[in-house]
Amino acid sequence: MKMIKNAAGRMVPDKVNNKVQIPFKGVGKYKPKGYTVPTPIRSCIDYPGDGNKVVADIKTALLNAGIKDGMTISTHHHLRNGDVVTNLVFDAVKELGIKNIRWFPSASFPCHQHLIPYLEDGTIHHIEGSMNGPLGRFTTEGKMKGVGVLRSHGGRYAAVQDGEVHIDIAIITSPTADPFGNANGVTGKSACGLIGFALADSEYADRVIVVTDNLVPFPCIPWQIQGNNVDFVVQVDSLGDSAKIVSGTTEVTKSPDRLLIAEYVARFIDEAGIMKDGFSFQAGAGGTNLAFVLYLKERMKAKGVKARFVRGGSTKYLVQLLEEGLTDYILDGQTFDLEGVRSMRENPNHVNTSPFTSYNFHGKGNFASIIDTAVLGATEVDVNFNANVVSHSDGYLLHGIGGWQNCLYSKCTILAIPSFRDRIPVIIDEVTTLCGPGELIDVIITERGIAINPRRKDLKEALKDSSLPIRDIKDIQKEVDKMCGGKPQKPKVDKKKVVAVVKWVDGTVLDSVFKVIK
Amino acid sequence: MKMIKNAAGRMVPDKVNNKVQIPFKGVGKYKPKGYTVPTPIRSCIDYPGDGNKVVADIKTALLNAGIKDGMTISTHHHLRNGDVVTNLVFDAVKELGIKNIRWFPSASFPCHQHLIPYLEDGTIHHIEGSMNGPLGRFTTEGKMKGVGVLRSHGGRYAAVQDGEVHIDIAIITSPTADPFGNANGVTGKSACGLIGFALADSEYADRVIVVTDNLVPFPCIPWQIQGNNVDFVVQVDSLGDSAKIVSGTTEVTKSPDRLLIAEYVARFIDEAGIMKDGFSFQAGAGGTNLAFVLYLKERMKAKGVKARFVRGGSTKYLVQLLEEGLTDYILDGQTFDLEGVRSMRENPNHVNTSPFTSYNFHGKGNFASIIDTAVLGATEVDVNFNANVVSHSDGYLLHGIGGWQNCLYSKCTILAIPSFRDRIPVIIDEVTTLCGPGELIDVIITERGIAINPRRKDLKEALKDSSLPIRDIKDIQKEVDKMCGGKPQKPKVDKKKVVAVVKWVDGTVLDSVFKVIK
Repeated sequence: MKMIKNAAGRMVPDKVNNKVQIPFKGVGKYKPKGYTVPTPIRSCIDYPGDGNKVVADIKTALLNAGIKDGMTISTHHHLRNGDVVTNLVFDAVKELGIKNIRWFPSASFPCHQHLIPYLEDGTIHHIEGSMNGPLGRFTTEGKMKGVGVLRSHGGRYAAVQDGEVHIDIAIITSPTADPFGNANGVTGKSACGLIGFALADSEYADRVIVVTDNLVPFPCIPWQIQGNNVDFVVQVDSLGDSAKIVSGTTEVTKSPDRLLIAEYVARFIDEAGIMKDGFSFQAGAGGTNLAFVLYLKERMKAKGVKARFVRGGSTKYLVQLLEEGLTDYILDGQTFDLEGVRSMRENPNHVNTSPFTSYNFHGKGNFASIIDTAVLGATEVDVNFNANVVSHSDGYLLHGIGGWQNCLYSKCTILAIPSFRDRIPVIIDEVTTLCGPGELIDVIITERGIAINPRRKDLKEALKDSSLPIRDIKDIQKEVDKMCGGKPQKPKVDKKKVVAVVKWVDGTVLDSVFKVIK
Repeated sequence: MKMIKNAAGRMVPDKVNNKVQIPFKGVGKYKPKGYTVPTPIRSCIDYPGDGNKVVADIKTALLNAGIKDGMTISTHHHLRNGDVVTNLVFDAVKELGIKNIRWFPSASFPCHQHLIPYLEDGTIHHIEGSMNGPLGRFTTEGKMKGVGVLRSHGGRYAAVQDGEVHIDIAIITSPTADPFGNANGVTGKSACGLIGFALADSEYADRVIVVTDNLVPFPCIPWQIQGNNVDFVVQVDSLGDSAKIVSGTTEVTKSPDRLLIAEYVARFIDEAGIMKDGFSFQAGAGGTNLAFVLYLKERMKAKGVKARFVRGGSTKYLVQLLEEGLTDYILDGQTFDLEGVRSMRENPNHVNTSPFTSYNFHGKGNFASIIDTAVLGATEVDVNFNANVVSHSDGYLLHGIGGWQNCLYSKCTILAIPSFRDRIPVIIDEVTTLCGPGELIDVIITERGIAINPRRKDLKEALKDSSLPIRDIKDIQKEVDKMCGGKPQKPKVDKKKVVAVVKWVDGTVLDSVFKVIK
């Protein structure tokens, strides 16, 4: 392994897990050659004519799927921190004595710390996928046998479609399914709304196993996952802890600072002229994001403005916009609360999407770039508007990328962030891990002021008479540094030991995460 | 070209349009090897960031798509005999001076006789797809430059997926679309219900052109076709004659003979024990098929039986079943009347399907084999239960295959046919063109009696005490031959001149259609 400086000036390895990599070449500079990955042609001769693909248990399904050492098993994270199926799958893998699995989740959560012994004993070789919490800590401490690979939701779809990651066995945890393998997330006791993150897995994996705790007679409608792509169906008692799958309810922040940020965001969108009939926006599920939706809603009502679509992760606040006629559609990637699930079940205009539709950069366009404004978070931003979303200033990898990188392509990308957290400044000289190049980040909104990227002269011009606290990013930084007693310390890391890499949406390597020295 | 006798005893060419063929090997005997066809990896860099793919007109779209001599252009037939877009496309092809196009429609209709001059002057080399009416006549008279290839809906999907047919440019005629290329058939002045026959084309064609007369702002919901697969969008004044796209209303037969057949069908399904809670059936749009639904409905109501799903082509009669609570779902492949379109727009349980879901034999199962009973038509059947659905006893190719071959996989396939038409017996010694092997056809129901395939001892047993006129197929044949003044004459054909071939669902060649000598 050799370290190379990429177009963003970051040091990245030329090989990851023995596979040659392409270093980041700049935004919009790398175009893939070649063809999408072919899949074996199947025949109905090999599948039950009555459509019944149910097998006894997960172990049987894995055996039927031909599980072997060194294979890649994929999972999805629609059940978030309530998922138990992934743990059951790896219990079975361990029991079968299989080794060196590449685990390819769309994201992992604290509930998956159950798998740490399997990472230690070689059942799992490494994780490619976002690592929230304990698995991220484990990885950053250099304990994982292989190197982690972090991809955005769109980047993950592309990696599968392009053949960069071959999935041997896909596990599709499905709150409702039929014996043929049609499945959805919208009904059943473990309902999570939709299961679109598993779409690529269902299309491209060699073998696809649907696991459900709500088996219904054919046809399972809607068929968010199509049985025509499924090999085996397994019924289990429970997919997980429904209280952790979706929140009973999501609440806006109560912090006065965060509320101020949210109000600034809504005012900015209005005063910049973005909030007009037929506009669109994306909001996440953080407390600040939820609050901004409420402030924006008041402005929309006051001015009689209706959105064409809003983009979820949906919550009750987006559902209210839809049901009060303030938007024509919710285009949803995952539902965060019970109201989101209910709405997706009841409202035909609450539409389930997939990373193919929303985010795949290796398609004939995707809709992330059509959205008028995306309001996102970050763990750090630097004075050049570069941002970090996966690690903290102490070097620890603790968060997933999600669709964050993909959303940067919106027409106006806003990072709504506190200027400091736990007395550590959030605006710094250089981000610990680069996840989003500054040229795609248009506005930073903190409780202490709003910084517009100098590239966006149009936004500066639009806001020139605004009473909003538009400031130079370095001014805000200076003030916060003073308040916090200085810039944050650089993390102590071993620059020779890459524990994970962050891919850009086009599959190139954007940055490295290094082993933290305690 | 050499003629080979295939496993059904039919003479088929070893090559078609210079491409080596696999002769039919028997039902369930041929399994494809290899991989689905890879498609070029695209990049968002090459598509407009604002999602606007609209170009000036069809000619511009064809030029942007890189049209060249010898390419394959595909169309779909959801607009049936009302379609004008296909004609406009080939007008543009002709104007551009392009030659030797392979036209790959999912079916062609009488409205497409506009294209006969283009077949004559070499603009179009040949047609692969069903040919209803004039184009079938043109082909049977040996006037087409190449050899026609007839495939079922499922066979067409597989041919595209498997790479047997490479589509250079797909034309997707869309009653509603947005500038990104998302499209549906459910709304707009040319609404036809759904456009699932174009799914394979959208997924696998090099370039995809959406043509619409109802352009709406992003997002067009439902997105039956996803804009992520689309290259260009063209707006035209009108897609066609809406009166011919869907019927204002569909009516049951008034013929006493056909009504008797319909009643026999309903009685048979009931008495054979098929009609029970949770059962499923498929019905077509012919007058007899519609009538059988009404008779069956009365029986279902009388016995308190509810179907799990019914399979369309939908009509108002299927919609009534859904809206009166006699079925949980309609799984629809195409809507035949305005009530079908309305229902698909309004009822979430009236579900649009595609040949991938329903019929693709080269998938991990399909749902044609899950259906309890399919009631189909035929132009001829023979005493071994083999059936023909594309040609008449005079040798003329006048009808499409549609999903007919695929539906033969139902658990009980019933052909509901008159025993003679225009004084020509329908039960004959050997079908003129073999479209469906007798082993998959379970029951023949005519106004003069019902013949059960001897292979289905279970059905014979179930009906042994029935007062239905269960008869030997040869008895019925004898009676009808007598009445009609003898068996039909064999058509006069040139056995050296194959004008078209009929493929089986697995891509092998089942039979040949020969040039008719007048």
